[in-house]
Formats: sequence, structure tokens, C-alpha cells
Amino acid sequence: MLMTAEDYRESLRSLSPRVFVNGERVECVADDPRLAPGINGVGVTYDFAHEPAHRRLMTARQGGRTVNRMLHVDETCADLLDKLEAVRLVCKVSGCAQRYLSHDALAGFHMATHRADAVHGTDYHARFLAYLEEVQRRDLTLGVAMTDAKGDRSKRPADQPNPDTYVHVTERRDGGIVIRGTKAIVTGAPYMHEFLVMPCRTHRPEDAACAVACAVPVDAEGVTIVAKPAGRPGEAAAKFSARYGQSVGVVIFDDVFVPHERVFLDGEVEEAGHLTTSYATHHRQSCIGARAGFGDLLIGAGAMMSEANGLDPERHGHIRDAMVDLITITESFFACGVAASVYGVASESGTVMPEPVFANVGKLLLATRIYDMHRLAHYVSGGLVVALPGPDEDHNPQTAASLAAVLGGRGDIPAERRAEVARFMEDLTVSHQAGWYSVISLHGGGSPEAMKREIWRNYPVGERADLVGQLIDRGVYDAGQRVSRQPGRCCARGCEAPDRIAPEAAE
Amino acid sequence: MLMTAEDYRESLRSLSPRVFVNGERVECVADDPRLAPGINGVGVTYDFAHEPAHRRLMTARQGGRTVNRMLHVDETCADLLDKLEAVRLVCKVSGCAQRYLSHDALAGFHMATHRADAVHGTDYHARFLAYLEEVQRRDLTLGVAMTDAKGDRSKRPADQPNPDTYVHVTERRDGGIVIRGTKAIVTGAPYMHEFLVMPCRTHRPEDAACAVACAVPVDAEGVTIVAKPAGRPGEAAAKFSARYGQSVGVVIFDDVFVPHERVFLDGEVEEAGHLTTSYATHHRQSCIGARAGFGDLLIGAGAMMSEANGLDPERHGHIRDAMVDLITITESFFACGVAASVYGVASESGTVMPEPVFANVGKLLLATRIYDMHRLAHYVSGGLVVALPGPDEDHNPQTAASLAAVLGGRGDIPAERRAEVARFMEDLTVSHQAGWYSVISLHGGGSPEAMKREIWRNYPVGERADLVGQLIDRGVYDAGQRVSRQPGRCCARGCEAPDRIAPEAAE
Amino acid sequence: MLMTAEDYRESLRSLSPRVFVNGERVECVADDPRLAPGINGVGVTYDFAHEPAHRRLMTARQGGRTVNRMLHVDETCADLLDKLEAVRLVCKVSGCAQRYLSHDALAGFHMATHRADAVHGTDYHARFLAYLEEVQRRDLTLGVAMTDAKGDRSKRPADQPNPDTYVHVTERRDGGIVIRGTKAIVTGAPYMHEFLVMPCRTHRPEDAACAVACAVPVDAEGVTIVAKPAGRPGEAAAKFSARYGQSVGVVIFDDVFVPHERVFLDGEVEEAGHLTTSYATHHRQSCIGARAGFGDLLIGAGAMMSEANGLDPERHGHIRDAMVDLITITESFFACGVAASVYGVASESGTVMPEPVFANVGKLLLATRIYDMHRLAHYVSGGLVVALPGPDEDHNPQTAASLAAVLGGRGDIPAERRAEVARFMEDLTVSHQAGWYSVISLHGGGSPEAMKREIWRNYPVGERADLVGQLIDRGVYDAGQRVSRQPGRCCARGCEAPDRIAPEAAE
Amino acid sequence: MLMTAEDYRESLRSLSPRVFVNGERVECVADDPRLAPGINGVGVTYDFAHEPAHRRLMTARQGGRTVNRMLHVDETCADLLDKLEAVRLVCKVSGCAQRYLSHDALAGFHMATHRADAVHGTDYHARFLAYLEEVQRRDLTLGVAMTDAKGDRSKRPADQPNPDTYVHVTERRDGGIVIRGTKAIVTGAPYMHEFLVMPCRTHRPEDAACAVACAVPVDAEGVTIVAKPAGRPGEAAAKFSARYGQSVGVVIFDDVFVPHERVFLDGEVEEAGHLTTSYATHHRQSCIGARAGFGDLLIGAGAMMSEANGLDPERHGHIRDAMVDLITITESFFACGVAASVYGVASESGTVMPEPVFANVGKLLLATRIYDMHRLAHYVSGGLVVALPGPDEDHNPQTAASLAAVLGGRGDIPAERRAEVARFMEDLTVSHQAGWYSVISLHGGGSPEAMKREIWRNYPVGERADLVGQLIDRGVYDAGQRVSRQPGRCCARGCEAPDRIAPEAAE
Repeated sequence: MLMTAEDYRESLRSLSPRVFVNGERVECVADDPRLAPGINGVGVTYDFAHEPAHRRLMTARQGGRTVNRMLHVDETCADLLDKLEAVRLVCKVSGCAQRYLSHDALAGFHMATHRADAVHGTDYHARFLAYLEEVQRRDLTLGVAMTDAKGDRSKRPADQPNPDTYVHVTERRDGGIVIRGTKAIVTGAPYMHEFLVMPCRTHRPEDAACAVACAVPVDAEGVTIVAKPAGRPGEAAAKFSARYGQSVGVVIFDDVFVPHERVFLDGEVEEAGHLTTSYATHHRQSCIGARAGFGDLLIGAGAMMSEANGLDPERHGHIRDAMVDLITITESFFACGVAASVYGVASESGTVMPEPVFANVGKLLLATRIYDMHRLAHYVSGGLVVALPGPDEDHNPQTAASLAAVLGGRGDIPAERRAEVARFMEDLTVSHQAGWYSVISLHGGGSPEAMKREIWRNYPVGERADLVGQLIDRGVYDAGQRVSRQPGRCCARGCEAPDRIAPEAAE
Repeated sequence: MLMTAEDYRESLRSLSPRVFVNGERVECVADDPRLAPGINGVGVTYDFAHEPAHRRLMTARQGGRTVNRMLHVDETCADLLDKLEAVRLVCKVSGCAQRYLSHDALAGFHMATHRADAVHGTDYHARFLAYLEEVQRRDLTLGVAMTDAKGDRSKRPADQPNPDTYVHVTERRDGGIVIRGTKAIVTGAPYMHEFLVMPCRTHRPEDAACAVACAVPVDAEGVTIVAKPAGRPGEAAAKFSARYGQSVGVVIFDDVFVPHERVFLDGEVEEAGHLTTSYATHHRQSCIGARAGFGDLLIGAGAMMSEANGLDPERHGHIRDAMVDLITITESFFACGVAASVYGVASESGTVMPEPVFANVGKLLLATRIYDMHRLAHYVSGGLVVALPGPDEDHNPQTAASLAAVLGGRGDIPAERRAEVARFMEDLTVSHQAGWYSVISLHGGGSPEAMKREIWRNYPVGERADLVGQLIDRGVYDAGQRVSRQPGRCCARGCEAPDRIAPEAAE
Repeated sequence: MLMTAEDYRESLRSLSPRVFVNGERVECVADDPRLAPGINGVGVTYDFAHEPAHRRLMTARQGGRTVNRMLHVDETCADLLDKLEAVRLVCKVSGCAQRYLSHDALAGFHMATHRADAVHGTDYHARFLAYLEEVQRRDLTLGVAMTDAKGDRSKRPADQPNPDTYVHVTERRDGGIVIRGTKAIVTGAPYMHEFLVMPCRTHRPEDAACAVACAVPVDAEGVTIVAKPAGRPGEAAAKFSARYGQSVGVVIFDDVFVPHERVFLDGEVEEAGHLTTSYATHHRQSCIGARAGFGDLLIGAGAMMSEANGLDPERHGHIRDAMVDLITITESFFACGVAASVYGVASESGTVMPEPVFANVGKLLLATRIYDMHRLAHYVSGGLVVALPGPDEDHNPQTAASLAAVLGGRGDIPAERRAEVARFMEDLTVSHQAGWYSVISLHGGGSPEAMKREIWRNYPVGERADLVGQLIDRGVYDAGQRVSRQPGRCCARGCEAPDRIAPEAAE
Repeated sequence: MLMTAEDYRESLRSLSPRVFVNGERVECVADDPRLAPGINGVGVTYDFAHEPAHRRLMTARQGGRTVNRMLHVDETCADLLDKLEAVRLVCKVSGCAQRYLSHDALAGFHMATHRADAVHGTDYHARFLAYLEEVQRRDLTLGVAMTDAKGDRSKRPADQPNPDTYVHVTERRDGGIVIRGTKAIVTGAPYMHEFLVMPCRTHRPEDAACAVACAVPVDAEGVTIVAKPAGRPGEAAAKFSARYGQSVGVVIFDDVFVPHERVFLDGEVEEAGHLTTSYATHHRQSCIGARAGFGDLLIGAGAMMSEANGLDPERHGHIRDAMVDLITITESFFACGVAASVYGVASESGTVMPEPVFANVGKLLLATRIYDMHRLAHYVSGGLVVALPGPDEDHNPQTAASLAAVLGGRGDIPAERRAEVARFMEDLTVSHQAGWYSVISLHGGGSPEAMKREIWRNYPVGERADLVGQLIDRGVYDAGQRVSRQPGRCCARGCEAPDRIAPEAAE
């Protein structure tokens, strides 16, 4: 059953999480205006699954039913591309629709549980498949509880003075486990249905208690959420983020019991590390789609702003140049997401993962270039975005008329429209919300240093060195026997796709 | 008489400007908490003139008295350097102390009135010197009312449907002139003593009514100020900008009478254009000092934040790299300010102007690289700056203890301290205030395109082409007779300084 | 019949072009050592079509026969991707295999002749198809004669003092036309079989004589080629470009007769402009593949060089960082080529063209970032690449032993090997050949300004502005009726492909 | 006695170094055409000391006599600025005049010998002063033999399999020491008078034998120089570097005896490290001047090239933009050199050293941005620089006239002139010489990583953190007692200069 945004909001009423926002206990998540922009953002993913124009992208078939794309586990390279485009679509409307995190985590759990079973003879995968089926059937939204509080960053978990800086297993009982600790950055925490808990790095054997992956309802006993408001609710100047935003929360697990059927890893440090990595690879590709959608907003707002200023990019080369730079940045990192789809990598569990070099390159680009995007948006907008008096002034009888008379730009665009566009741009690029987008682009899904390490780890540097070695030695290059045996097959399921750029090792 | 910050605040009580903030009339500028951060910022320039450690930099001798550096008209290259350092000093404490605008405008008026008299036989310069003497004696703070509302940016003033988009002279009476129109971006407008009104570009003869320069008290009849709050007054999370900030206002001149002794240009389009350019050159150098002070804040906050996270830059190369990038950006644009001082250009009025290529290059660099500065500050800080729950949470008995227990970083730095540093960084780089610093760096003092045109206009490209022409033709370079006649003399007053890098045209 | 490299070299003997190199007439192109590296480069495209490992990529089926990929006209998005990968493959071995120009021009001619016939009722397309069939059957290599000498760049053709600065039709006879003028930059000119002549820009009606497209054998009467040597033939230090290189020539058409069956446009200015644009779009995508191959060489050489120096990137973060930057640059522009394939655009002639925004973005990136690639390659290599004595020193009995003893790096890599790698790197990044790669990356296939204009012209800015307009007005986005009617169909032929990111205009 | 370039060339005849170039023994350095461009480059520093227009900059008074600026030990901040400008001047004529290395090393020796004596009670400083007096009196040119061959870069000297990878002391005899080993990159080696030998890093105590600093005549027994030709001697296309260039050589010390009076450090590892660092600081500032001169050449050539192409930067915004970028890069790193002078640091030996943060920032910028300078020069030049046939073609009667007719650009600039300018640009930015400039900018005077470490080591990060700490704690900043005690005094000798930006630690 595919819910609508309205169904989703209603479904939150059946849960009773312990949530604090700005130091106050939240009575009802579904009704709290401070969380409404976040719920609206997630809601787009629900509503668009019903829109005829978007249905093909926003849904997929799996396990005999139609599921929301945000809950679908990719089976082909085309799925990866559809998901990428779907994320861009919902984020260009909502800024950040948040729910792709559910997708990314489900994909990671699918792979890691399968691998753990193969190595350890466990039955995690079957548990997970049952859970997946329920999540898809109920059309849930799952939060990702991954980033631990970490404490002193130069120390590993077991060496921390306070063990609660990392979520860890404190007890194993009949029927389940007990977990304890704090996850520091959980996107959309208050209005999720459940959390997927997982480690934020590969742990050492001595930190095995932290290598735990499981699902926990948002209102499980012992869970406390300390969250920030989503977007800029109730602010008149917030032309965009009064409607769409994202809450971020700290989630405290105070001896929370998790029944076995919701435990998907428990102490398998290597597979837990694999879970983190494969989740991250999926997530980095999703971030690419999300931030491309943000780019669409900036491009559109920039075009409207320069038009309202009376500056036609056709005639003003420096404005056109800045617009082209903005486009170039957005589409070049999006292209990395496309390439990560096309060269998707088949996993043993039957899913397809984005090609990690392209996924990490794209995320690395967006992480650093979002700042340039803001610069370019400001460049084409002029100083009005910070100089314009606030919306309270619009209704000040002593000043409104005078201001309206002089603050217009191009003759056929009323001053009021120009002000709206300026405030939209201010909201996206000057406000606290703007800063949030920047930091989350830089550090969300892993910091640039993490991306760089993944690129290095995954790139076929040896093949390149071999090429040069052969050219030096013989002037020719014979990669014959080293190329993939299955040209035209990207993955085990046999979907049509091109060769890998990185030849496989010869058998 | 050099005032203190307290004297300055008191002096504002004797004025009664018509000011609106957030749609409400401000009763008393000196007491309105929404303007206090701006007044505090200006106040630093007053107090530091009394600090023994800063007195040498913050004051200068002129006309037989000690004046505040922010009101001093530069006579030597050393003055330019002192001013540059003074601006950095007050801005590293206040973010932006605003008052250097007074300095920059006074310098421009000094040059332009002198030139107008020489060409037109007017007596503007004497009027201005009398005014300067009064300003210095009373230790005033002057706002710069330059940026017109502009209307449709593709049209010049006389072609605008609404003439009030530009401030212009509407009447010339015995004893003075009447001006009308709107200045759109006036820094610190509500808490200035007077405005220096000047054009925002070189006007055509048909727009001569806009070529007006004059001084107008902030509370002159017909002046209305529609301003935004300064900084983030009253916000608990605003660790810096609750104390220091800047208001920006729209200033409406509704048939304001200006007596002759306060009129410094009236219709001299060329000299008015010269005023704009020479003000801008001074101002761009000041911006360099101001943003270097902002850089100091980011460097300091970045160092504290990585320390609180437990990441020692000595051992973590990627953190050190980012810190060095931040330093490199800050000091490289500051160096342009230094070079603009060293190669200062003497003017006929007896003042020294910053060398325009270096001043514009430095401003161009800071304008675009402030975005990189934010990126680097975020990079070294980690995601905490957006994930940390707000200050209301600090006193929530149900969560405060748990949060404090896990949100600490390095063992010897309490979680509370880490939170303070994170909020300080958030305030500087994530909040609306952060966006304000970015946009004002990009567009304040002219947009990048304006800087580029000035660089091109002032650079000795011909000399460089001549060098290459000679090398092609003869293999040697004979710049002998083309070099400045006065090695070691940077300006007419004979202060010691090095040769110009750009040789003078041969006589 | 697919030729081998050896067949190709032999086939050049049957032609007798009038070629000058370094001021001397070339007797026999096939045997002149100064052209050998260029012929070797093209030869790779012939030989690899026979290699089992590369056959799938390097050949395609068309018109009932197997043709070389470099002569294939793309019918599906998959073809575009195969071509992109094929170009990367041959260029990572040869630096630049040159022959993809044949592909790009054939694709442009296919589209433009079809369009001209539709508008003007001409029969160009049938002529072209017959020609294409012959070219594929004979497995030829075609040069692109597009860039006119241009004369004064601020003047259009008809305004030039010397009309021969542009190739133009001077006479129309029974059986054909006569052309005259100079093409200034023709890659591989001496060792092509034929030239495809086409205009270098969209011409005005008064310049219609320049709107000529035709095929001319390299040794047609009246054709003179003034060329530079290919690579660095015979230089002992040229570890790479003594074997592989590219000649560039000026081609002078001195009243050359072209029979009707080889004339594909004559005066149709609009379609000729379309030819230029669509050729350029194909070519820019090919450049992406070519320079990615060059990136592979730099990555491989950088890895070998840092290894020979004894610096393991795993342990030396700054070396790893630089290697990752090199990878990031290469793979991010390559990804644009992939995306240009995936979103390929169907043409009316039945071919598929790379999506122009991605193709131009990718070319723009490589054009500017090749300089960064050189910087990074130098960074990881150290100063040895310029300090190493030349190869003549290797056999100097008075110094060779001493040098060998001290110029080794890592113990298990002989000094001789380190020197070879250093010279390979020097050849790629320090030599004249290195400069050639840079300039050709920047200006080949159009300068950055041309790319920027194409990006602006093709980007759906209106859709983005509409998105923002709707969000401002209604808070939602209804792109329903504006999306492409044929999800999953990229082109008229129905190849499987994802939706376009840029929705189509509503009917 | 100040020599002229001709005197300098003659003086080389009295020396008989053992030099190999391209595997052949050089008979006479002064007459070998392969070394002439290098000798010409150094010669500019001699001749300009006699030019009335340059005499003030190119000479200085020291020890009672007028000495060449390139041999002067700086006593004031003004000296540093004069030296910086002098280096720019001679390098904008010669590309790189090389001799500033003498200056930089002499300054370092002055400081290090003084310090060593203070710590160890040695008499190195007196020895050095005597040597300095002789060098200045004889107006010599000294090469810097610093960069050891290094062997495996992951190993320190004592751990190298071959000890000769570092120059070290092998014996101490009556009257002197014996040194052995190889210096890998010695600029201008064949045509120096003497070498100043010094270590390339701070050594460990166990590597003390490598901590040796001394002066060795270029033709001392046991010295062998294996060098590359300077520039591109004899190449017709080398419009610049056939006349001016630089040789780089490997210098092998095969048990070379050095008398005590020429030994300036021997085993004092700490002071030897200080020598390396202080030399490097001076040298990095000199590199700034040198590369700014190179920038002047590129700016001039770019202006001429776009003019010859008929593209007026006033009207073609993208050309102007690129020219402004080129100017911005050049002048922004030059400004760092200016600031390093203004904030010069007094040493105990009585000299003044460039402020190290600015010197390193400037060098870091030029090191990385030289690649952008090449890009911009190519951008404004167009593809002609690689497409133009070689100079042999100019005299080919069969093609010369046709080419000349079409290869002109703007009507009033002959094709021949355009070709000259294009070849000048090709020489500077496409040839092997161009690559040399790039690599030497990147790695000469230390690699970027070394610069970054120096910036970090010298920057007053603690002061910045203290600022932020105080603002957080008290909202104000009290740096009162921490500022330098001597405002206005930059150095012990009391030359007039501004305050330091970095306040001193409080006593």
C-alpha cells in the first residue's frame, strides 16, 4: 500500500516518541509546527509516487508488489539511475526529501547480512528480508542512526572514558539484545517510523560490541530524541524553508531492548564495516541526486533574480558566465552519479551497488563545490538579498509604498515579485538553512577525507601503472587477458550495460 | 576630543532619526536591543583609540590634533598601512567595525573636491576641509549613502520610469539644495551621526542631477531609514553576533534640504565619477583589512574546534592542510592590502591613495574566496556545528546531563566548552550572519566585475607588451627612460617608499 | 574489410599528397620518420579492431557489415558509450589516436545532409550515404578540415581583406565545384586518406560561399599540406612520443575541384551551421574519451614515479591526495561523457547525438583542468623530471656509473628504471608534446567560450525558473504535463534508456 | 669592482671545471653555445648594475663599497623590497636570471654561522665575513649546491645503501675537510664561479656528517658537473629561450678537499637545519620576484597575441577576463613578497629575513598557479601557438607566400609579426622550456608540502585561538600586553617599518 503525504502524517500519530525540540517536550510530532517542514519534505516522496508524471520514477516492482522507490533495493544498473533521478526530482521540490536515506541503508543491510551469513553461518539475511517486506508493505520511512557521538576523536571506542559515546551492546538476553549509547546526527529523527542502527566505521575486534546493526522503532522504550526544528518554520522571510526543511537530532539509546528478529549484525566487525562502506557508497550517490536538485533550485532562482534585476544573461556576459558555472558544477557532479549507475557493481546478495569511484568522486565534488554554488548564486543576484528590508516592512503603512516604488527592478516585474525572489534566494543561500545545506553537503555521508580514501582504495591504479610499464618496455599495451569476461553484463543478473572502465583481474 | 564607546552611544541620544526596524518605529536608537550589536561594533573603534596597546595604530595626528584613525585622511604610505592594520584589528574583535567607511569616504571627498575646484573654479575643497575639521573634532561616525536603488539595472537614471530610484537634486534654493531619492544599502544607517551622500557610478551629462555629493545629518527632515537588525540580537545561540553585528538600511531622502556648506559636488559629473572611484579604491583596501580580521576569527575558531574534537593538526595532515589553506587565503589577500599601501599613489590634494591594482586584486580575492574560507572552517570543524542541539537544551533537566556526557570531545575540554566553540563557529559560518558576511564580501565595495574592470583600466599592460616587443626585436629591454624619476619617493610629500613596479610614462 | 595498422601504412603509399614538413617536401608519407609517430597513433585504431579483447568495443555492425568503431554512425545511446570507451582505450595507448575525428565528422554530415534535404529538397543525404558506405568498406581515415585561417578575428569572411582566409566556393561547373582558401589546423593532415571539409562557424547569408561541406582526397590537385612533425621522432629522451604523436597541418586549397557526388552542402548556411554544431557536439564527447586516456597515462606514470622515489601513497598523505585529485579530475570529466551517452538525443536522420550539455560540460572541464593534471603529475614526481641528465649521458663512460649509483630511488628499483619513468613523465608533461596536449585540450573542438555558449543555449533554464516560480507561488511543483511522453525511450529507434533530466516542452 | 656581462663571461675563462653536457665534455664553458643562454641570463644582473635607470635597485652599499644587489646581505626591510623588485626586473628580461640564488645563500650563511658561533664557540662567522667580502669584491656568481640525490626518499642518510646519495664529510685533515656525494639539482652549475654547499634538510645527530656547509670553486679537484643545455640554444623557433635560459646540473663531489677558511658548518646539525630554513625563506621570496617577472612576460605576450588576432580585450569580455586573471595571479603572489619585506624579521647576526609566513604563502601560490598562468596565456592566444608551421617554412619558396597571405590576423599587423609573437608565446608556454618553468616553480625552493609545513610552523595560531577564547569568555579582546614592544621598529637596526601583524608573546 503506497501512502500519500497525508497518510504518512497520519501514521505518525500512532507513534509516541520521546522528542525534545528547543528544550521542550514535543506533544505530537505530526502537529508540531516546528517539525512540519521536515514532514512536508518527506511527504513529497509519498505524493509523487501517486503522480502520473512521476510514478514510473518514484515506484518500482519488488517481491511482487509496487513499492516506493525510496524503499526499493536496486537489482539493475537502470534501478540505480532511476533512483538517482528520483532523488533529484524530490529534492528539487523539497530541498532535501530525506527519505533516500531509507533506501541507502536498506541496500547496505541487504548486502551485509548476506555476506555475514556466508561467513558466519548466521541467519541475518532471512531476518532482514522479512523486515524489508514489512517495511515495503507498510511504506515506512526509516531513519539512519549511524554517526556516533565519538567523544575524543583521536581515541577508538574501547579507549573512550565514556563508553556511551558509541552505541554498543550491553546485554544479550533471551529474545534479543540491549543497546546503549548516543548517535549524534540523525536526519529527520523525530518523524521517522523506525531507526536503522549501524556502526559509523569499521571497528577493531576489541570494539566488537559497537558492531551492531538493528532496527528500532522511534518510540521504543529508552529512546530519546533531542532535535532541532526543521527548516525555518513560521518565519515570514523564509520563502522556501518555512515549508520544506529538515530536522536533525541526537538520539540517545538508554538500554533499549531489540528483539532478535530486528537484529541484523551483532559483533561481526568485518561485515559491519562492510555495511558501513556499502551504505556509504549508496548514500553518496543519493547525495549527488539530492544536491543536483538543490542546484536546480539555485539555477532557477538565479535566472529569476537576474531577470528581475533587468540583467539579461544573453547580453551581460559576466552574468551568463556565472550561470554557466553554476550549471557546470551541478551537472558535472550529477554526471558522476550517472556514471556510478552505468558501471554499477553486482553484489553477491543479488543487488547492484553504485560504482564506488564515481560515487565518491561525485560526492567529493558536491561537498566542496556547494560553496562555489552559493558564491555564484550571490554573484548573479546582487546585494539585494541581504539589503532588502524584512517582510514586516511590507505592511508598514509609513514605508511600504515608498519602498515598493523604488525597489522594483525591471519595469514589467513588480517590486513585490522581485522581493519574493530575493527572499527565496536569501532563504536558500544566506539563512541558517543555507549554512545547513553547506555543512551537510561537506560532512554528510562522510567527510572529504573519507571520500578520498575510498577513491584511492577502489581505483585500479595498478592497471594504469601496468599500462605505462608496458608502454615503456614494449611500446604497446596488451590488456587482452585482463579484461572482464562478460562484456555487456554489468551484474550477475545480466542487465544490459557497458564494459567496466576498470578491467577485472584475470582469472 | 576622542570619544569612548560609551560617549558614542550617549551622543546618539541627541539625535532623533526616523528609523524603522522590522516594520516598527525605533524609539531610541541608543537603547534598542536590535541595534546594540551594531553600536558595539562601531564602539570598538572608539575604545581602542584609548587602549595603550592600540593607540599608535588607532589614532593619528592631523590639523594639529589627535584624531581617530577612522577619520584620518592619509598623508603617507605608512598611513595607509597603519589604517589597514587598524581595520584588521578592530574587525577581528567585532567582525566588522563599520566605521572605516567614514575614513574611505572622507579620503574620496578630499581628492574630488580638490579636483573639482581646479577644473571648475568652485570652492568645494575649502567647504570640505571645514567639514572635515568638525567631524574630526567631534569624533563623529559617518555613514556612506552611495548605492542607489537603481531600478531596472539595464537603464540609466534619466531613463528610469521612477526618478527616485536614484538620489538626485530636485531644487536649488538660496542657501542650499534639495535632494530626493533612495539609497538602497547603507551600512549601519540607524546609528550613524551623519550620511555622506555620493553617486554610485559615473553619470552621463543628462544624469547630472544625480552627480551630487553632500553631508546630511541622520535626523535631517525628510530622511527615513528602514533598517534590519544588527547581527542576531537576543539569540542565545549567537555566541558572537548577539554582541557584534551590523545593520543595513534603506535610506529614503524625501526632499531633504542641504545647506551649501554641506554640498561638496553638484552636477560635476566627471569629478563625481572620480569621487566614486577614489572612494572605492580606499574602501576596497579597507575591506581587505576587515575581512582579514574575519579570517583571524575563523582561524582561531578552527584551531579551537579541532582541538576540542581531539584532532591535533600536527598529526592529522588533512586538518593541518585545511588550516594552512585558510591562512593562505587570508594572508594572501591581506598582502595585497600591504602592497597597495607600499605603492600608494599621491594625489593632487595632498593625500595618498592605495595603489589601485593591488587594492582591487585584494578585494577581488576576498570577494570570491570568502566562500572557500567558510568551506575550510566547516572542514576542520566537523558536522557538530549543525548537529548540536540549541542552547535551550542546555537547561533541559531531562536531557542536559545525557548530552553533556557524550558530546564532549577531548577529555580535558568539557562538553560545555566544546559546545560554546561549536556555536561560535556556527554563528560565524552557518547562521544568517554568515551569509551576510559572504554577500557583503562579494558585492560590498563593488561587485567582482567592477574590480576586474578597475584592474584592467589601471594595469600597465602597455609596458608589458613593450617589454615583449623589445625582447622579440632586440633581445634586450631598455626601460631606462621610462622609469619613475623619483625612486624612493612614493608621493608628493616625500615619504620614504620603494619604486613603483609600474614604471611611469616617459616625459 | 578491416585493415590492420600495417595495411593502413601500406595504403598511404597509393596516395601522393603534396606535403611539406619543416620546409622540406615529403617524398613518401608512409616512410618519413617525422610522421611515423602519427601513423602509429592512427594504427592503434586499426590493430585493436582485430584484438579479441577489444573487438567488441572497436567494431560495430552497420549496413550489413562490420565496420571500425571510428567510422560507425551511432544508432543508440549504447553506441555512444561504446565509442567513448573505445576512444579512451586507443588514446591511453597512443596519447591521441586522432581517428575519432573521422567518426565525429561522419555523424555530423549524416545529420546535416538529412536536414538540408528536408528543407531544400536537395539530395545530399543519398550522396553522403553512398560515400559513407565507401569509407566504411575501404576502412579509410578522414581528416577534418574545419578551422579556417580566419584572418582578423574581429571580421566576418566577406569583410576580410584576403578572402582566402576562409575556404569558399569560387566556381560552380558542370560536375562539381571549385573551392579555395586555407584551413589552419588539420590534425594528422599528411597521413589522412581524405579530408572532410566543413565550415568552422555559422555563416551569414552574405558569407554563403563559405558554407561548403565536401570530401576531398588528400592528394587532389591543388591541395598543399604544410605540416609539423608528429610527436618527437628520433629523440632519445622521448620515451613515449618518439613512438606516438600527432602531426598538425595547414591545408591550402588552391582552386580544388570537387565533383558533385562529394559535395554535401553548398551554400545552405543554416544547415552548414547545424553541421558545425552537431560535429562539435560529437567531437567534444570524443575529446572527453581521448583526454581520459591521457589521464590514465598520467595516473600510471605518477604511480610508478612515486614508487620509484620510495614514497608510498598509503603512508604519504600528500602524495595520495595528489593522486586522488588526478583521478578525480579524470573521472569527473569522463563521467560527463558517460552522461552525454546515456541521455543521447535522437536526430531525424536516425542517428543519436551526445546530449549537448553534458558533452560541453565535460569538454569544458578537461580543457581547463588539463593544466591541473600536469601540476599534479609534477607534484607526485618531484624535481627529477627536469633535473635528470639526458639520455646521451647514459652511455658516457666518465659519468654513467657515478650517476647510476646515486640516482636510484627505492632500493629494488634500478636507477635505470627510475630514469625511464622520469623521462616518460617528462615527455608527457614537460616537453613540447606536453604543451601541445594542453593547448589542443583547451582550444581543440572549440575554445571554452564556445562551450559556455553551447551550455547556455541548450540548458533548460526556463524549466528551472518555472520550478522556482511555482514554489514561490504555490509551494509545490507540478511538472506533470511537461515531462517527456516517452519515458524509457531516448531516441526514435527505441533503444532502452532512462528519462531525460530536462523535461520536454509540453505539446 | 662591478663586472659587466662581458666581464663575467671573460672571468669564466680563468676556470676549468669538468663539465659534461649531453654526454660530451665541454671544452670551454664561456664559448659553448649550449650554455650561452644561461650565461646571458646571469649577465643581465651584471649589466643592469651599470644601467642608470636600474642602478639604484641593482646595487647596494655594504662594507664600504658598492656591491651587486645579488650579493648584498639585507640589513633593512627596504633592502628586502629592493631585492624583490630587482629580481623581478632581471627575470622579466631573462626569464630567470639565476643569480639571486647567490644572494639567498649568502643571507642564510650569515645567519647560521653567527648562530653556530654563539652556541658552539666556533669562528665560522668571521670566516664567512671574510669570504663574503671577497665574493662582493670580485663580484662573483655562486651556485647553490643543496638538493642531495636522496636515494630512497623514505630513508634518512645514514640508512641509505649508498652513502653518496647525500654529500657528507669523509675525512678531517689538517687544513680542511674532504667531502663526497652528489647534489642532484644545481641551477646554472657549469657557469658559476663557486658553489655554496649546504644540507637540504635538518639532519639527525646520526647524520651529522651531512650537516656540512662550505664554499667550493667550480673547478676544484674532484668536482664533476653533468649538466643539461641552457634554454633552447640554436633553435630557430625559440624566440626567447635561444637567448635566455638556465642550465641545471648534477654535481658530483668525489672526495673534494675544502680548506678550513671555506668551511662554514661541520656537524652542527641544528644550525645546519637553521641554515636550510633561513636560506629557503630568502629564496622563496626571491622566487616570488622571479616568477612575477615571468608573469610580466606572459602578460605582455598575451596582450600582443590577442592584439595580433584582432581581439580587443576592451570589447571581448572573455579575453579581458583572462588577462585580468593573469594579472591577478601575478600581482597577488608578488604582493606576498612585498608583505614579506615590510614585515621582515631581524636576526641576531644583524640581517633581516623575509617574514616567513608571507614568503611561504607567496611561493606556495606561484608554485601551484603557474599552471593557471599557462592556461590563461593559452586561452588568450588561441590555437595558433601550436598550429603555426615552424620557422623553416618561412623560407620555403613553395609555401611561404601562401602562408603569409592567410596567417595574418589584424590588418595592420603583418603575418610575420603575428608569427613571431606566436612563437614567443609557444616558447614560453608550450616548449620544453615552458615545462621547465612549471616544474621549477613547483619544486624549486622546496615542494608545496614544505611550504605548508613552514606556514603552519610560523603562523601565530595560538594568538588567533586566544582571540576567540577571549571573545567567547568575555566578549572583548585584550591583546594589550602581548603586542610587540617596539611599534614602528621592524628590526634591530631600527629601520622604519610598521607593527607586526603577529603580536609577540608577552614577556
